[in-house]
Amino acid sequence: MKILTIDTSSNCSSVALSDGNSLLGEAILGQDRCNSGRLMAAVSDLLTAAKLAAHELDAFAVSLGPGSFTGVRVGIATVKGLCIATGKPAVGFSSLAMLAMNLPFASLQVAPLFDARKGEVYAGLYRCGARPEARQPDAVVPPTEFLASIEQPTIFLGEGAVRYRELIQSSLGDSAIFAPWHLDQPRASAGAVIALESALKGEFTPLALLNPTYLRASEAEIAKRKKDAQQNC
Amino acid sequence: MKILTIDTSSNCSSVALSDGNSLLGEAILGQDRCNSGRLMAAVSDLLTAAKLAAHELDAFAVSLGPGSFTGVRVGIATVKGLCIATGKPAVGFSSLAMLAMNLPFASLQVAPLFDARKGEVYAGLYRCGARPEARQPDAVVPPTEFLASIEQPTIFLGEGAVRYRELIQSSLGDSAIFAPWHLDQPRASAGAVIALESALKGEFTPLALLNPTYLRASEAEIAKRKKDAQQNC
Repeated sequence: MKILTIDTSSNCSSVALSDGNSLLGEAILGQDRCNSGRLMAAVSDLLTAAKLAAHELDAFAVSLGPGSFTGVRVGIATVKGLCIATGKPAVGFSSLAMLAMNLPFASLQVAPLFDARKGEVYAGLYRCGARPEARQPDAVVPPTEFLASIEQPTIFLGEGAVRYRELIQSSLGDSAIFAPWHLDQPRASAGAVIALESALKGEFTPLALLNPTYLRASEAEIAKRKKDAQQNC
Repeated sequence: MKILTIDTSSNCSSVALSDGNSLLGEAILGQDRCNSGRLMAAVSDLLTAAKLAAHELDAFAVSLGPGSFTGVRVGIATVKGLCIATGKPAVGFSSLAMLAMNLPFASLQVAPLFDARKGEVYAGLYRCGARPEARQPDAVVPPTEFLASIEQPTIFLGEGAVRYRELIQSSLGDSAIFAPWHLDQPRASAGAVIALESALKGEFTPLALLNPTYLRASEAEIAKRKKDAQQNC
């Protein structure tokens, strides 16, 4: 089953092209706030190198967040466009589960963290074998609150772990372990592993329901709620 | 420290560009016997995206093998060329250590395997934390011989593990665990983690000593030895 998987949930986007259990190619676009502009070029390059056209793929997969509001929306919009153009189905997955799958079979639980700004992190707690298993729901929380809930040695990874490394170390001491830095960026191919399993079970998401997992309201929504509340006063 | 890392030791080449502990970009070229022809285009694309020129980098890193004879030679030749052109130093690392670093902090020992053809595998046995630790020297052996030496549950990964999956399962039963498929391909960024540590200690390899780790004689050498032996009879 040929799947193109896109992740744009952080400032490090990536695209993976896979055929069953085989990775045909992957582009990790690095830390660049403008990298969603390079997304379609990366998609095109991967397809060209694999001598495949979009309509020859079987499905498209995308991370639904949590993560960058704009980033997640770009990824989902791109995949919806590809699905509509080709008539092929879509699969969505958690961006934190994808990040956790950078560390399968780890001896300790794994905490993938994205920087959610405003003093918060998008945080998950996983044990991953061949697939990710969430130990608690993905959440957006202040890092101190998340760290207070950690009761056992944990491996941290992701841009949130990089940003809050000192805080994590001072809170948890030797119980905090950090993944090698090449695993801090999410990889679309890790999402492809999750997506393939769903696709093989026929678990696709109707395009109308392929929505971002924001976990918190957007700035625009917060502003609108404030305005509505003021008007109602 | 900005490092460009190249791996061409298997039929899945990759290139990573990093700055200290930060991955600026990575291209995984997928399983394509001709992908070394796409190597310099990938290098060029990564540098362009990061707005860097080759002479602005601090070092070049390359996997020395074991692996594809031609592949390893292409990688080393490319890095030597880049080093000579820029005057920057080189770092080499084991391709099997790099592959093992796809699974750091694993609860079990990790066996990275490349298919060495002729009924053999390039095989290593590692425990990886923040860096890889070899439990025995990298070797080229028939898979049955390697498997007979395994005395505890082990996670297998790499194209050799894919090729010999049934044999591994029938030999070791439940003691054989297979990494998720997105980790079967080596990643230059995992090599970059090893290379950065060497580079920070000033442990560079003089270009004259940057040689492939073949572990066995090439076809040409074997043919020459046979010929010499016949002539000496």
